[in-house]
Amino acid sequence: MSREHFDVARFPELNMPPRILMGPGPSTINPRVLRAMTTRVVGHLDPEFLRLMDRVQALLRYAFETENPLTIPISGTGSAAMEAAVANMVAPGDPVLVCVNGYFGLRIADMARRYGGDVATIARPWGEVFTPDEVEAALAQRPARVVAIVHAETSTGALQPLDEIARVVHAHDAILIVDAVTSLGGVPVRVDAVDIDVCYSGSQKCLSCPPGPSPITLGPRAVAKLEQRAAPVPNWYLDLTMVGKYWGQERTYHHTAPISAIYAFYEALRIVAAEGLENRWERHRRNAQLLWDGLEGLGLKLHVPLEHRLPTLTTVRVPDGVDEAAIRRRLLDEYNIEIGGGLGELRGTTWRIGLMGFSSRLENVVLLLSALDRLLH
Amino acid sequence: MSREHFDVARFPELNMPPRILMGPGPSTINPRVLRAMTTRVVGHLDPEFLRLMDRVQALLRYAFETENPLTIPISGTGSAAMEAAVANMVAPGDPVLVCVNGYFGLRIADMARRYGGDVATIARPWGEVFTPDEVEAALAQRPARVVAIVHAETSTGALQPLDEIARVVHAHDAILIVDAVTSLGGVPVRVDAVDIDVCYSGSQKCLSCPPGPSPITLGPRAVAKLEQRAAPVPNWYLDLTMVGKYWGQERTYHHTAPISAIYAFYEALRIVAAEGLENRWERHRRNAQLLWDGLEGLGLKLHVPLEHRLPTLTTVRVPDGVDEAAIRRRLLDEYNIEIGGGLGELRGTTWRIGLMGFSSRLENVVLLLSALDRLLH
Repeated sequence: MSREHFDVARFPELNMPPRILMGPGPSTINPRVLRAMTTRVVGHLDPEFLRLMDRVQALLRYAFETENPLTIPISGTGSAAMEAAVANMVAPGDPVLVCVNGYFGLRIADMARRYGGDVATIARPWGEVFTPDEVEAALAQRPARVVAIVHAETSTGALQPLDEIARVVHAHDAILIVDAVTSLGGVPVRVDAVDIDVCYSGSQKCLSCPPGPSPITLGPRAVAKLEQRAAPVPNWYLDLTMVGKYWGQERTYHHTAPISAIYAFYEALRIVAAEGLENRWERHRRNAQLLWDGLEGLGLKLHVPLEHRLPTLTTVRVPDGVDEAAIRRRLLDEYNIEIGGGLGELRGTTWRIGLMGFSSRLENVVLLLSALDRLLH
Repeated sequence: MSREHFDVARFPELNMPPRILMGPGPSTINPRVLRAMTTRVVGHLDPEFLRLMDRVQALLRYAFETENPLTIPISGTGSAAMEAAVANMVAPGDPVLVCVNGYFGLRIADMARRYGGDVATIARPWGEVFTPDEVEAALAQRPARVVAIVHAETSTGALQPLDEIARVVHAHDAILIVDAVTSLGGVPVRVDAVDIDVCYSGSQKCLSCPPGPSPITLGPRAVAKLEQRAAPVPNWYLDLTMVGKYWGQERTYHHTAPISAIYAFYEALRIVAAEGLENRWERHRRNAQLLWDGLEGLGLKLHVPLEHRLPTLTTVRVPDGVDEAAIRRRLLDEYNIEIGGGLGELRGTTWRIGLMGFSSRLENVVLLLSALDRLLH
């Protein structure tokens, strides 16, 4: 391939279909956020960029409802933030308890083992949540230094209550890691009020930012554990003792920050703050209720009981005799609507419908319900 | 902070200065690439996105001059690609040889130790390059499974010849990892012709794409080593046995790809292919020569001898009595030009001037030379 042979037909101009993203993420991105990425790129040590980093951190603390100084976007998508939590908190040999009631609990356990954690798990059926007593019993039987749990299981649509569990974990002198990938900006996370030690999320769910920088925050117990590590964090890129110095007062170069992605992230967080968290939660609740009522009105069954149902991601049981993949394909091809299939244990038996961030809109709910009605009946 | 209290004065609309990026990276981004990021985001498993991934891989193989099937962008900036190379190739206990003649050689050695490598280093003064005999002698004295070397040292501006060294490394039955962060798209890398086993780069240097996705390619020896690993790669996010399945035929979900960054990357690679690698190398050489002549005309001394001087990044010695940081600050404040300070051993004594990708332009060279003339004389 040379200049003469570059084939525009083979590598055409980018031209993507106008999808309405109602799957497990990414959600539809606010056009303001896309536009922010056309802003000229400056250097990662430019004084203007450093100023922007401070603003991003302030807005991110608002979104997490925390005063934690170490509150930053990781330069990778959600799973990189998960790995940052695990790599920095789990030292080789550390006993770790992972609560597994879905795909992402399994992923945390996998990561914790890779970092040398002595991992035990407790399990609940996919779609259910853990009680504080279950965590208490597990820790009484086998103490752990780190406990990890998923706040909003993207694979099941269950919302895990955390307040009591945080107290249990701290009574056992352990660090609590919480996965808030599908909750931050859509349902209350309240890092300081709940007393979560490490909380991480993704940008492409309820924050409606393109997948890229992924928020993480570390509280005082987590920072103390980080500072007391005997050996370096075995993951260089995600080593928060170094990344934290770039985002902190030192401004020491670590890796080149993803400048344009941080521009988008800033704009997405400004939109969150301008709407206000309370208004945002209420919008997500309202549209979820409309979706749930509508789905039940179509005769569909929801997988998670109302009490623990996540407003941002709904799992729906596929009716007997329906080809779930064919319906998803028709939604995409005919209506430009993306919904998700089931993941892991729920593969083939459920759909996953996301109403996150910019995608959580009345018009999306009504359109999807009408489209499903036409395709199913 | 609530809706009523969101303070636009504290979090103003994004407004970045129009920097001319002539530092060690990022380089100035082609506006076409920025515009690509306003394209609507689709899902990471959308058939249209999967088609785009194939195109990205084909273009990336062209840029690397390789037929390697496993040729992909890592979802993180350049150092993440470096870590992907190390994490996947260095198994615990593996003897590793790292050639250190600058900051990024040191970084590779640091990473290799974190992954349990038994690391030996050979060193050359910063700004010089290694001879094949030096590598041969080191391997004869102490065999290694993996040898890592930097093709274009961003900290020194030296260009390392590789052909003979690749032969030496393979004669010793080792895997060769090459850091091409500051060369890919600006000077020949020729992965297949040189027979490099693992080669990685960054997006924000000679490809003039915002920092984000970072190219990596693995040849047959590297893939064989990866497939024969006894234990899982200890880094989950960068585990190429899993990432490769998402980019390969299986399309298995691993982590959410940074969609918008991949859009930008595609556009940047299209621009590379349309210009043609040979034309691109020639442009980088021509503008570098103009810069070198001009700098010497101003009485400045270049740190690297002509023979091993990198066209994409030039290190200049700061004249005695000149405050190097003050000059950089004035270039930025008065001319909107970013150049870099020295890194590591060269901190305080050199400047680093990048002419990479879209930044490698006659008008940039002439402007910088004039500005330096005014500031220094």
